[in-house]
Amino acid sequence: MFIMNKFITSISLALITTLGFSQSDQEQVDKIYKTSLTNGQSYEWLDYLSNQIGGRLSGSLNAERAVQWGKEELEKLGLDKVWLQPVMVPKWVRGVTEYAYIETTPGNSTVVNICALGGSMATPYGGLKANVIEVNGIDELKEQGEANVKGKIVFFNRPMDEQLINTFQSYGGCVDQRYAGAMEAAKLGAVGVIVRSMNLRMDDYPHTGSMTYGDLPLSKRIPAAAISTNHAELLSHMLRLDNSIKFYFNQTCKQFKDVQSYNVIGEIKGSEFPNEYIVIGGHLDSWDLGDGAHDDGAGIVQSMDVLRLLKASGIKPKRSIRAVLFMNEENGLRGATKYSEEAKRKGENHVFALESDSGGFTPRGFSFDCSDANFNQVLQWKPLFEPYLIHYFEKGGSGADVGPLKNGNNVVAGLRPDSQRYFDYHHAANDTFDAVNKRELELGAATMTALVYLYDKYGVNPIKNEPKLKD
Amino acid sequence: MFIMNKFITSISLALITTLGFSQSDQEQVDKIYKTSLTNGQSYEWLDYLSNQIGGRLSGSLNAERAVQWGKEELEKLGLDKVWLQPVMVPKWVRGVTEYAYIETTPGNSTVVNICALGGSMATPYGGLKANVIEVNGIDELKEQGEANVKGKIVFFNRPMDEQLINTFQSYGGCVDQRYAGAMEAAKLGAVGVIVRSMNLRMDDYPHTGSMTYGDLPLSKRIPAAAISTNHAELLSHMLRLDNSIKFYFNQTCKQFKDVQSYNVIGEIKGSEFPNEYIVIGGHLDSWDLGDGAHDDGAGIVQSMDVLRLLKASGIKPKRSIRAVLFMNEENGLRGATKYSEEAKRKGENHVFALESDSGGFTPRGFSFDCSDANFNQVLQWKPLFEPYLIHYFEKGGSGADVGPLKNGNNVVAGLRPDSQRYFDYHHAANDTFDAVNKRELELGAATMTALVYLYDKYGVNPIKNEPKLKD
Repeated sequence: MFIMNKFITSISLALITTLGFSQSDQEQVDKIYKTSLTNGQSYEWLDYLSNQIGGRLSGSLNAERAVQWGKEELEKLGLDKVWLQPVMVPKWVRGVTEYAYIETTPGNSTVVNICALGGSMATPYGGLKANVIEVNGIDELKEQGEANVKGKIVFFNRPMDEQLINTFQSYGGCVDQRYAGAMEAAKLGAVGVIVRSMNLRMDDYPHTGSMTYGDLPLSKRIPAAAISTNHAELLSHMLRLDNSIKFYFNQTCKQFKDVQSYNVIGEIKGSEFPNEYIVIGGHLDSWDLGDGAHDDGAGIVQSMDVLRLLKASGIKPKRSIRAVLFMNEENGLRGATKYSEEAKRKGENHVFALESDSGGFTPRGFSFDCSDANFNQVLQWKPLFEPYLIHYFEKGGSGADVGPLKNGNNVVAGLRPDSQRYFDYHHAANDTFDAVNKRELELGAATMTALVYLYDKYGVNPIKNEPKLKD
Repeated sequence: MFIMNKFITSISLALITTLGFSQSDQEQVDKIYKTSLTNGQSYEWLDYLSNQIGGRLSGSLNAERAVQWGKEELEKLGLDKVWLQPVMVPKWVRGVTEYAYIETTPGNSTVVNICALGGSMATPYGGLKANVIEVNGIDELKEQGEANVKGKIVFFNRPMDEQLINTFQSYGGCVDQRYAGAMEAAKLGAVGVIVRSMNLRMDDYPHTGSMTYGDLPLSKRIPAAAISTNHAELLSHMLRLDNSIKFYFNQTCKQFKDVQSYNVIGEIKGSEFPNEYIVIGGHLDSWDLGDGAHDDGAGIVQSMDVLRLLKASGIKPKRSIRAVLFMNEENGLRGATKYSEEAKRKGENHVFALESDSGGFTPRGFSFDCSDANFNQVLQWKPLFEPYLIHYFEKGGSGADVGPLKNGNNVVAGLRPDSQRYFDYHHAANDTFDAVNKRELELGAATMTALVYLYDKYGVNPIKNEPKLKD
């Protein structure tokens, strides 16, 4: 890039209409963005959570260290209340590093990169070796039937669809293989399952993730692992050349009894409507292979920073604002379930809940799960976000952890960052701090804070002037 | 991220109005995007250009290798014409790796990371050591005056403004120090200049870039180098503790005579209006420290892929479409100057020119430099881009290489990718292939191709039905 005649965009402030917000709102939103970009704490927090604590699977020592860290950091913010909400969580342990190879003839083998899926059984002692049948999904598996599947390792190799712009759609169209593949293959007599990693990129990282055996008895359960995209292509190619080749893998993972853990909650009490709650959150647990920086360290530190940025911007909320660091989103959703049960039990009126669990990338907007009336309200605020290149306000889902709070009168929503790179890192060993850009992370925190500011100030239609509902 | 209840955006196709485009245009645009994401060649080309050729400063052997490569690859596409357009370019050579340290007391020194600015003089044989005066820009330099500056190294340390959303604005507000700092400091008797790198991130990479001595005679010119942001902070901190510390640097860079080089041009001849030209381009030269993958390998391969994607999508252009790989954008703009001179001389009517020179990141839209009538035309097409999350259509600048083609009747434009990470890599050793995401690059190529398709089909108002103008 040459410096002369260089393009400079002049971002003109969005035209302020008289509907739904005021000039002072634009100034307040601008202050929030500037504060986050110059004085945010998201990045520093994420550095600690990623590099000093690291991967934090539910039930692990690191998960408990993350709980203590979250509580201590929230306590430093001078909130009205910080506490731990107990919840029992599953404990699954990966064991020694997995090992796998493709064997063309005895003694002639190629090592490949795999990782056990979360919740999988171990292989038998000494590992498992069998012939392989490749299928492009569960439907094709069922077509093959027991005759072709029995005694074999089933290799699910349907790739994520590259044509879709929203990579979460590609994921949604593919992940059934990982989640239910082993259960379905076991019913047909398979001895193991290998799944192509949920990754749009060709590389060497296997991507783990949750799976289920459904109601299968323990004796029928078979081990399942993910293979890197490069090695999925290799295996497929070798099978086309010779479908009598064998696959060997060894993994020692194990499920233990549930253990005690916690959601971490920090609250600023509302000055006018203390029983109207606004929740922002992400999940504190992560998979164990990387640092969980994007999934979901980013959402954790952004949610914590929303409280801090509100205070730093001089905003005294009318409604009670909570940051919730949910435990066990990845393999059980126990924290979210517990939080929503307790909210119902106490009659807390959750008017708005916003989740960040799509990575720390440049924010593009939000998806909203709410009534048309509520959606029309938020659309009025969209021009306030235009100077920050936030353009995506769409009806759609929210997020796994805030979804249970939906009650028909309120608004649940999700932050929507740029999704192109998310699955490069998702559930893999390269989901680490260095993959997160400071400014992109901070823009996300500011975008969340600005929306919380507006919902706090104006309340949530159509219930804002009506008697409070017990949900 | 947990798989159940997971958000899936349903991108609804933009509502098609009857103004300015048809349903078949949406289908054609969709085909272009899908082709780029599944069968694009941008990424493969960029791999070669970055990893097999590498940095390619004007006048270098690598720049000539890039010219030959570009010509050969364009020839493989089966275009109507591929040729080299000769242009003389400056040749500046960095010499041996620069070396610098901060000396608190004789023998007590700290090595810091610098790189010579492009076009700088060498230091005297054996290097240069002097006291340092820190200033926040050229204005403060002038306030200090000759009495405080003479015999010293001037340290320009104004950081890029973190508060701006568009990082090119931050760059524009800061780069005068780098471009003109040495010239202004020399006038006041300074012996050297050190400039804080144009980088929003704190890291260890010095960032080079162009500079000028204006009309200063050779004997008055002083050497100038950039220092990494981390070491700029260190130097500033040490100066606050003790302003008598000294700075040493050594660089052996040298300006040679101009040498022969080339723009590379590939053309599809228009079937109906062969003398109406649409140009897409980027610059083939790069700085020498990294691979020039983002600046501007990305723009080169995207421009080449526009021609390929048009053909692959079955589009037979009515107007002549040219991809121009401009030489010498970084330190002279000789290629762009030559191209526009030749176009004028031949009476070629350039109706639309689009540049990609802002990195290979997720595209957000375009900036247009054109009349209001022409801008209103392109705004009608904006809904066609919404399914691909392209939302930014703004009046503003275009780009250094296509700017000279502006004539008052036509449209010149620039692709606008997400700008948050651009200056992390810009002109530094980490501008390498691995910093580019395949999908983000391909989305940019598709976005450019779609706009070219529309301008080719509908022409450029208000001149489309008028006699062709000689510009």
